[in-house]
Amino acid sequence: MNGADALCDTLLAGGVDVCFANPGTSEMHFVAALDRKPQMRCVLGMFEGVVSGAADGYARMADKPAATLFHLGPGLTNGLANVHNAKRANSPMINVVGDHATYHLEYDAPLTSDIAALARPMSHWVNAARSADEVSALAAEAIAAANTAPGRIATLILPADAAWGETRAQLSNVAPPAARRKVDRDSVRDAARRIRDGKKTVLLLSGVALRAGALAVAGRIAKAFGVALLAQQSNGRMERGAGRTPIERVPYPVDQAVALLAPFEQMILVGAKAPVGFFAYPGKPSVMTPPGCDISRLAEAGDDLLDALEALADELRVPVAVRADVAALVRPPLPTGALTPDAVAIALAALMPENAIVNDESISSGRQLFKFIGAAPPHDYLQLTGGAIGIGLPMAAGAAIACPERKVISLQADGSAMYTLQALWTMAREDLDVTVVIFSNRSYAVLHTELQQVGAGAPGRNARRMLDLDGPPLDWVSLARGMGVEAHRATDCESFVKSFKAGLARRGPSLIEAVI
Amino acid sequence: MNGADALCDTLLAGGVDVCFANPGTSEMHFVAALDRKPQMRCVLGMFEGVVSGAADGYARMADKPAATLFHLGPGLTNGLANVHNAKRANSPMINVVGDHATYHLEYDAPLTSDIAALARPMSHWVNAARSADEVSALAAEAIAAANTAPGRIATLILPADAAWGETRAQLSNVAPPAARRKVDRDSVRDAARRIRDGKKTVLLLSGVALRAGALAVAGRIAKAFGVALLAQQSNGRMERGAGRTPIERVPYPVDQAVALLAPFEQMILVGAKAPVGFFAYPGKPSVMTPPGCDISRLAEAGDDLLDALEALADELRVPVAVRADVAALVRPPLPTGALTPDAVAIALAALMPENAIVNDESISSGRQLFKFIGAAPPHDYLQLTGGAIGIGLPMAAGAAIACPERKVISLQADGSAMYTLQALWTMAREDLDVTVVIFSNRSYAVLHTELQQVGAGAPGRNARRMLDLDGPPLDWVSLARGMGVEAHRATDCESFVKSFKAGLARRGPSLIEAVI
Repeated sequence: MNGADALCDTLLAGGVDVCFANPGTSEMHFVAALDRKPQMRCVLGMFEGVVSGAADGYARMADKPAATLFHLGPGLTNGLANVHNAKRANSPMINVVGDHATYHLEYDAPLTSDIAALARPMSHWVNAARSADEVSALAAEAIAAANTAPGRIATLILPADAAWGETRAQLSNVAPPAARRKVDRDSVRDAARRIRDGKKTVLLLSGVALRAGALAVAGRIAKAFGVALLAQQSNGRMERGAGRTPIERVPYPVDQAVALLAPFEQMILVGAKAPVGFFAYPGKPSVMTPPGCDISRLAEAGDDLLDALEALADELRVPVAVRADVAALVRPPLPTGALTPDAVAIALAALMPENAIVNDESISSGRQLFKFIGAAPPHDYLQLTGGAIGIGLPMAAGAAIACPERKVISLQADGSAMYTLQALWTMAREDLDVTVVIFSNRSYAVLHTELQQVGAGAPGRNARRMLDLDGPPLDWVSLARGMGVEAHRATDCESFVKSFKAGLARRGPSLIEAVI
Repeated sequence: MNGADALCDTLLAGGVDVCFANPGTSEMHFVAALDRKPQMRCVLGMFEGVVSGAADGYARMADKPAATLFHLGPGLTNGLANVHNAKRANSPMINVVGDHATYHLEYDAPLTSDIAALARPMSHWVNAARSADEVSALAAEAIAAANTAPGRIATLILPADAAWGETRAQLSNVAPPAARRKVDRDSVRDAARRIRDGKKTVLLLSGVALRAGALAVAGRIAKAFGVALLAQQSNGRMERGAGRTPIERVPYPVDQAVALLAPFEQMILVGAKAPVGFFAYPGKPSVMTPPGCDISRLAEAGDDLLDALEALADELRVPVAVRADVAALVRPPLPTGALTPDAVAIALAALMPENAIVNDESISSGRQLFKFIGAAPPHDYLQLTGGAIGIGLPMAAGAAIACPERKVISLQADGSAMYTLQALWTMAREDLDVTVVIFSNRSYAVLHTELQQVGAGAPGRNARRMLDLDGPPLDWVSLARGMGVEAHRATDCESFVKSFKAGLARRGPSLIEAVI
């Protein structure tokens, strides 16, 4: 067999059976190998940001990595923004990046670049095969690296001659993902001692501590000892809605985060990072906790967070009778009249089906969304983790591929959606069950707010040319139809509700441009 | 003044008065500074690949750099593919990349990444301001670096506090671009000696040797001594058409390149690189020249190539009476019937106006295009230089901004166009005089050819899922209209010619989907 076949077989042996791809000439042997393996699902993105964003969405919902396929350095860099988001979401991912044949690199052909150097800042593991003989062993290493909890980015560079070269090397065994580390008894006792000391305490959760089971345990601790629960500001995935323990996030605006955290004397981290400002602002702090707040850690993101919380509840002897608060289902009445961001959120709460996946890159339009859907039917909530906008539509596509039986609802700011709008085509091509809502405010609204904060006064021509997206307005109905996705425009609540109901009722992709 | 104002003023003092931008929160002080300078033209790209591709197109036609504005590491990576192309085109470019405030970096906020590490593989000069006091001096260095012949990529990282911090540092003087180096007499004599020795010789030209004046001199040498002229396979800009010395390029397919170069005993490089395969293929050579072909260099890409060729002609005592061959204007009859890639090229030759800028990212559909328009009215020809597809539409936008009085004709493969289709919106926003032709073959046709070369046989389901772009077909008319660009579909020569004439006749952007 050749190196490309060895890679393909090793990936499949490691349980990696989805490949999001945008191949080029130097990857043709790998394409041919994939073509010989119908058990590998190959999904084309017409831009690499779609590929990596979809791999992130897939990993968040499948709890395992997909492979990506990129064409040399520029193909990789096109995908790196969403690799960055995946890294910040602790999503596992295996990037396969084609390169020139090893002997061709010295000639500095036009597509040559230092792929490893480009990959390193956004990867936990980077390696390049020097020959076909090395491919399977490196692929097994890459899979193991990606599967290292809580999830890592592995980038394997595949020179063309390592792909086409023949090899007799045995296929490497792929170790199954290791069980997550149990936190040690001392950490549990320390956290318990802190909670018992009566200081005003907040547990800050992230990662798999935000799945329903772990949340319920945290909720019992909170109830029994009067400690607060908060989630990190950005998280890869949260299980939310009716029947689940509600949890707020640390707010994005610095002033709100500081105010919310001001009362706490201590914070215990459960898979989370201590909260810092998303950006720095003149005269505002970088650290969101008040001075003197004691920050300790029960568990790292990669630990078994359910076990850690259960051990903590045991150590604290939380009575079995203490039940966590859970959200009761609330279906608000349907909104009417003028269409606003809040009206969209209310319609979502009123109409969303059980077990939906809500994918939120609504930026300024969605500031209230999280709150409004807290008592909706149980759902998963996926958000932008790394601040690199343009992940929403790809992530929705990837989540839909991971969970074909679930409805994905993708809430998108228009400015962010434009970054990777090619994902709409992938939704159509794969007939993915995604209902997309575009918040069409025709500006980088968040930046108008930020510009005001800078004290720049009313924006002049240059600022408006950089922050406004009107002139001409984007026509999302045409854009979606241009890629084969059914689409409608809504200008009031009535038309929005009608289109949204229709989108939810059908299987397959649809888009609503919500003009707000 | 603050650091952002210092940067803006230094750029303007250095003649940099166009800024292609996609800003974010950390760049708001720079946006505010730009807003105070109406003499700076700010052009928004709704994706960073548009920003960098437009800056490349601008630089190729303006012969000076534009600034770009990117939002931290992911914003930069989104633009890097077209920075790579610009680097391979020897285009000057000044990238301004916002970063977190210096004191905020240690907190590893979600958007944090190693920007310098990401920038370095695609930049000649990378530096980060540590404070507002350093900004003007670094900006002056960046401008000087970018202006270093033949054109370089300078990336200046601007932390938010270096932008908003006050400074009393004097604005740095910006040196005007240095004159290009004259080649030394020895190199000229050496080249002359070689030409006189009677071996079968080819002059390989690139860079500014492909401007009309230098070509004419090379043409006189060729005529007087029977040496061949060839251009490098990919070049940033060529002046072509009627009245100019015709020159072929080294072909892209390895077999054709090898066959064309086989007769030559020696090659003299004039601003070009020795020809190598764009990709490596099993059993095919990396080097395109025949074994034993003696390769020498008259001049580097950054040298004064016109002067070098004139000095060579003098050294060779080419008689004044020897005139270079020039192309005579040929207007072919308009094509009729079925629409093919060649028919589009013939229609272009028949209809293109004087002094157009032809921007070619037509990939497989355009293989004959270069030949067909060689005797069209004089024009500039811009092509993909670095192999990172998705530069065509942005480059067209940038070229149109550099040359508002000239018609830009952008010939685009559909697959490549999808990478950065957001550039259509910039064309509409800025009312750029660009006529776009999309070759709609609904596949990565070039990869089908490459897959055959691999010997993979008929593509199966996975290969087709990765190489075909139908199912659903892209509707370019809808996509263009969705971004405010007038568009029509052509399915035969008659409808193409009608739409193409209309596009050429109007001022402003339009698009034709040529279904081939």
